[in-house]
Amino acid sequence: MKNTINVGVIGFGVVGAGAVEILQANSYSIKQKVGSTLRVKKIADLDITTPRPISVEDGVLTTNVDDIINDPDIDIVVETIGGVKPAGSFIRRALEAGKHVVTANKELIAKEGKTLLPLAAELKRDLMFEASVGGGIPIIRPLKACLAGNNIAEIKGIVNGTTNYILTRMAAEGLSYSDVLPDAQAKGYAEADPTADVEGYDAAYKISILASIGFTSRVDVAKVFSEGITKITSEDMRYAAELGYVIKLLAIAQNIDGAMLVRVHPTFIPKHHPLASVDDVFNGIYVNGSAVGEVMFYGRGAGSMAAGSAVVGDVIDIARNINFGATSRISCTCYETREMLSMDRVRCKNYIRVRTEDKPKVLASIATAFGDNDVSIESVIQKVLPNETAEVVWLTHEADEPNTRRAVELIRALPVVKEVSNWIRVEE
Amino acid sequence: MKNTINVGVIGFGVVGAGAVEILQANSYSIKQKVGSTLRVKKIADLDITTPRPISVEDGVLTTNVDDIINDPDIDIVVETIGGVKPAGSFIRRALEAGKHVVTANKELIAKEGKTLLPLAAELKRDLMFEASVGGGIPIIRPLKACLAGNNIAEIKGIVNGTTNYILTRMAAEGLSYSDVLPDAQAKGYAEADPTADVEGYDAAYKISILASIGFTSRVDVAKVFSEGITKITSEDMRYAAELGYVIKLLAIAQNIDGAMLVRVHPTFIPKHHPLASVDDVFNGIYVNGSAVGEVMFYGRGAGSMAAGSAVVGDVIDIARNINFGATSRISCTCYETREMLSMDRVRCKNYIRVRTEDKPKVLASIATAFGDNDVSIESVIQKVLPNETAEVVWLTHEADEPNTRRAVELIRALPVVKEVSNWIRVEE
Repeated sequence: MKNTINVGVIGFGVVGAGAVEILQANSYSIKQKVGSTLRVKKIADLDITTPRPISVEDGVLTTNVDDIINDPDIDIVVETIGGVKPAGSFIRRALEAGKHVVTANKELIAKEGKTLLPLAAELKRDLMFEASVGGGIPIIRPLKACLAGNNIAEIKGIVNGTTNYILTRMAAEGLSYSDVLPDAQAKGYAEADPTADVEGYDAAYKISILASIGFTSRVDVAKVFSEGITKITSEDMRYAAELGYVIKLLAIAQNIDGAMLVRVHPTFIPKHHPLASVDDVFNGIYVNGSAVGEVMFYGRGAGSMAAGSAVVGDVIDIARNINFGATSRISCTCYETREMLSMDRVRCKNYIRVRTEDKPKVLASIATAFGDNDVSIESVIQKVLPNETAEVVWLTHEADEPNTRRAVELIRALPVVKEVSNWIRVEE
Repeated sequence: MKNTINVGVIGFGVVGAGAVEILQANSYSIKQKVGSTLRVKKIADLDITTPRPISVEDGVLTTNVDDIINDPDIDIVVETIGGVKPAGSFIRRALEAGKHVVTANKELIAKEGKTLLPLAAELKRDLMFEASVGGGIPIIRPLKACLAGNNIAEIKGIVNGTTNYILTRMAAEGLSYSDVLPDAQAKGYAEADPTADVEGYDAAYKISILASIGFTSRVDVAKVFSEGITKITSEDMRYAAELGYVIKLLAIAQNIDGAMLVRVHPTFIPKHHPLASVDDVFNGIYVNGSAVGEVMFYGRGAGSMAAGSAVVGDVIDIARNINFGATSRISCTCYETREMLSMDRVRCKNYIRVRTEDKPKVLASIATAFGDNDVSIESVIQKVLPNETAEVVWLTHEADEPNTRRAVELIRALPVVKEVSNWIRVEE
């Protein structure tokens, strides 16, 4: 047992400060569990003057990341700066310098995990990233350990707190996306440039990570379909409720005949589905395993202390590995190479909202477009709007995505159709 | 890396057969993850003639448990027979013979964990029991690893599938306990002698295990309060719904000023609470940690494959420890000795249903009994029944349990009161 295991933290922002606070506050209990004192020896950030919610000893803060990477006493490096550059090179250098690494960086692991994880395994160093998905919710380690006896058929969940907050408020208050965004930004739930969250990229990184573990095959994040929430209106929310659904931004990874279909898009889910009641900034992740059946993990998907909890869990796990000489005990588990399927392989129900001229036979011509493409209809709602306009909302039975797409294109081209206002996939 | 790690299974019932089936079906993928082949070398059961859903090679089955314990080639023993005797002595002997042990036995771990876990640690052997709580739901390992940086304030959940199935059907169909029990027995969800489930003992074992880990202090299961579901009637179900609640058998463990209050009883929970929608044989477990906030784990709490999934997860974890020379890497974490509090420390709202004579001033005399004991009232429902009887249902504000108990005793003794039909605690 080492008496002291030294930790260096790169990035003293929200997550970094949370992790340091937890390590400070629980140092006694952590020592009992690990057998060693976990000491934060250095914290590197470009900004070390802005006051933080916690205080650290003199000499701990530095603006030079090399003070961590080149310090031979530091055993574990925690990276919390996010983004691919320069985080990736910091982690690579830390591993090469013999350090173990904990990161909360979903973009980096999704994009560069394919080189970083094998590098860590080759160097017999731990590279852990529980905080990269679901904030503090235990999900990476349960997949790698507890559920290791399962073939995973599907992973599906709400993994982005920003969009879930926006969608929850839209549903509760009958608002459109553009009504809620400024307030979400003011409250700190959405960033000044909200693109990564609202376009689904953040969720795509996270589901890529989960799917890579669940399907034991590296997901190419560039091949993950991603559609955001910006086109959802209060009308869609209202129709969803009327039809017995809620709209959530779902990240979905399926094993289809041994290949992987990974996607992120707004989704109608039945209001009695457990994910339907995952509201605000909370995350909920469903895993369907061959033996365990369906399990769900739920909790706060972001925030200083929640993400810090996951980071510290990883630091403790690595410290245990150090003390037992068992580093890289569970390394990269992508031992297979599975094909990635396109959206053409999606088969689902669909919600399609169409604005038309308010004339006879409009319904029939649209229904024909569906029928000609083997898309059958479960229900239709028609409403008359001002200015000789009608709104027709279609809920289809399960259909193959290429057929639905062709039907939507045909409908859009119909002379009586003013616009296809939205097309949202439905999961039962 | 060992080429082959041999497993001996004691008990070829529901859970044992599930674990063997998973090890057989996924042997290739498990080998990729672990680096070794996990081979079921022996299975011991008193009955080896009744057909099982899976077949095993000749020579694997034995009626003599010593064929496992005395086999020097067997590395890991899986115990799935349940109960304290003889399971406890089998596990003790297996550990002493140098084997690692996986068990699904909640009663044994709850009652004898205090000697078995230190014995395993002393012998540097792994003793894992993920399947003892929540079937296949990952909960033990997440508590010991992912959430290790948290001080746990509360663990609360639905951990018994039998009672949850019965309560779900009572709520959905307006039935009483005694109406549903025979059908639950016929369906295999309740045993011929349902006592351990319906009186809350099974849930008490499970919450004792979770609380011991969460609070890092061994819970004395004899001091866990346990009240079952047998007194719940269709009237209680109806009033619960009317008041906006559902009735669940909750297992609750709280850290109160450093001491532990652990209990199992039927509980009103608001119908919008995430646990309220945990239905049928599913389990849901809420953990409140100082850093992570609230996280919930949900899934199928029992069954051959679900429990088998957890057993196999443990077997894989031990195999990894064997290959890395890291056995007993995470052993008993009860490094503290916390006091156990009695029910006198409960403070909660209460539902109290009273049958009275249908006379003037009845309400006032009951209200006085509450008021005299500092129990204030949130709402009252009064209904007239046949035979000059009235039924009065009281929902109290939060009150200290001794005060509520005294009020109930006073009310029961009132001349106008025919009976206190039920008293059920309420959690918000």
